[in-house]
Amino acid sequence: MYQLVLIRHGQSAWNLENRFTGWVDVDLTEQGIEEARRAGQLLRDAGFHFDIAYTSVLKRAIRTLWLALDEMDEMWIPVVNSWRLNERHYGALAGLDKAETAARHGADQVLLWRRSYDVRPPAMAPDDPRASFDDPRYASVPRAEIPLTECLEDTVARALPFWHSDIAPAIKAGKRVVISAHNNSLRALVKYLDDVSNDAIVKFELPNGLPLIYELDEHLKPIRHYYLGQ
Amino acid sequence: MYQLVLIRHGQSAWNLENRFTGWVDVDLTEQGIEEARRAGQLLRDAGFHFDIAYTSVLKRAIRTLWLALDEMDEMWIPVVNSWRLNERHYGALAGLDKAETAARHGADQVLLWRRSYDVRPPAMAPDDPRASFDDPRYASVPRAEIPLTECLEDTVARALPFWHSDIAPAIKAGKRVVISAHNNSLRALVKYLDDVSNDAIVKFELPNGLPLIYELDEHLKPIRHYYLGQ
Repeated sequence: MYQLVLIRHGQSAWNLENRFTGWVDVDLTEQGIEEARRAGQLLRDAGFHFDIAYTSVLKRAIRTLWLALDEMDEMWIPVVNSWRLNERHYGALAGLDKAETAARHGADQVLLWRRSYDVRPPAMAPDDPRASFDDPRYASVPRAEIPLTECLEDTVARALPFWHSDIAPAIKAGKRVVISAHNNSLRALVKYLDDVSNDAIVKFELPNGLPLIYELDEHLKPIRHYYLGQ
Repeated sequence: MYQLVLIRHGQSAWNLENRFTGWVDVDLTEQGIEEARRAGQLLRDAGFHFDIAYTSVLKRAIRTLWLALDEMDEMWIPVVNSWRLNERHYGALAGLDKAETAARHGADQVLLWRRSYDVRPPAMAPDDPRASFDDPRYASVPRAEIPLTECLEDTVARALPFWHSDIAPAIKAGKRVVISAHNNSLRALVKYLDDVSNDAIVKFELPNGLPLIYELDEHLKPIRHYYLGQ
């Protein structure tokens, strides 16, 4: 039997301000820092240990991981960063207040962008200063793979290759894995692991900073999962 | 021309208490945290960027790196941890107060242990609870390679293979490298790079948290080096 731990980052500044975030590199709030520490304390007190960690290239997920590993006294384990674990790219909506966006585009339209599986928000312009083409953290990513907007289906499509290439082989090699990432990149993994339907996965919401523990069989099929500290 | 940046960790609790540390996983003091942040600020303000970082498996070096990368807004770069960058193992002296040790063994003997290239302090007993055989961070290290004491010559001998296998190839591949490590593992690199004699290297002291910048030619021979912020 294998173990896998998923952690959604602690509260970010734009979670708090109710703004669409996506690939914008927003940091944790004080509350988010506390949530991350608490995740590490819960894992430590429950006797968890990790051999390797995976996270995105966005600091709210990286800092959450660092704070949790610090509490667990496991700062020395290998950490692998991948853009494939990034949050869903929110296109032109990045940075916009969710209520304002609803007032401008209509609440139904915003709900569709937020809660449909395959409807993308309007794309960011390629020359938008917030576009990621010139960001050094994506220098090794082919330009055609760097999104200007994503629906959840797109996020699933770019996250799962990393599961298959890196994470699943590590688990099968007996490594105890923790993944610190984002609501939608973690939805991608949960959808795959638990075979969740397109309609159901968009309603699934991971709480900030609460470790989600999976126990997996020898084929990496979930036996059970539960939240630590609930 | 290539660039390489070496950082000795900020002040640790046992630097402050004047105790031998070695492989004991002592954390930074508040001053050490400030020194680490300052290292990051100096590097950021001087326009440095890194593609990859190397550090030990000891938290005073890892935390120094994390704090510096945070200040530089480069938390997302790959970080590689290796026991080969650990501090010199101080044998049975680990944890002892330097003045008490001098009172017990004689000041000349302690000076010999501290300042000779090839004289080892007394070894830790293999069943000493501080020995590293059962520490999971060394699980992949062959037992015969895990030291119970080291002279600087030993530290050089186990640090340089990692330079040749990992760090030098990364630099030659054009990656901008930072190494956050310890007085003696960094001495090992400085001795090799600048071809420093055995007698001279034991007198070379790296200040805590002050980035040491090397400019290297195409054969990784130093053109010049200097401390940032001095």
